[in-house]
Amino acid sequence: MITLVIYDITDDRIRNRVAKVCKQHGLSRIQKSAFLGEISSARRKELSVKLRKTLGKEKGNIQIFVICKMDIASREIIGDIEEYEDEEIIIF
Amino acid sequence: MITLVIYDITDDRIRNRVAKVCKQHGLSRIQKSAFLGEISSARRKELSVKLRKTLGKEKGNIQIFVICKMDIASREIIGDIEEYEDEEIIIF
Repeated sequence: MITLVIYDITDDRIRNRVAKVCKQHGLSRIQKSAFLGEISSARRKELSVKLRKTLGKEKGNIQIFVICKMDIASREIIGDIEEYEDEEIIIF
Repeated sequence: MITLVIYDITDDRIRNRVAKVCKQHGLSRIQKSAFLGEISSARRKELSVKLRKTLGKEKGNIQIFVICKMDIASREIIGDIEEYEDEEIIIF
């Protein structure tokens, strides 16, 4: 299961925590506020619980998408993906 | 065809233009740098060409995903979606 997480969080502390949770659950950064990766459905559920806890009642929005293999094949990338510290960049 | 566009662009002028192009092609803002909507494959191709032109050789990254109906049903939203000026918020 390919999972995409995108978020819009103003608070630096919370935003960094969200990024950390995504990384810890096997996703790789593809943009400043977007993570992508192939993880099991169980792991995605765990990720969702953790992200919910991390945001708590703070202002912000996180969205989790599941993308099937067929759809990911249509993914288009325009411009360069920045390299992020200590991270691999996924290009399926 | 449900299309998701996410972008990571530092330059305000280019970023605003990208948002405008997404809107003009029938997508709705779901986050500060993410647009979603159901558009035809022809329209998505047109959007892709326009986005490529808009970014040009400037620094930045735009990614276009196609998401099928089955997958969009698994979409999870954590926290509130902010209301954006003159825009409808799509929640499938």
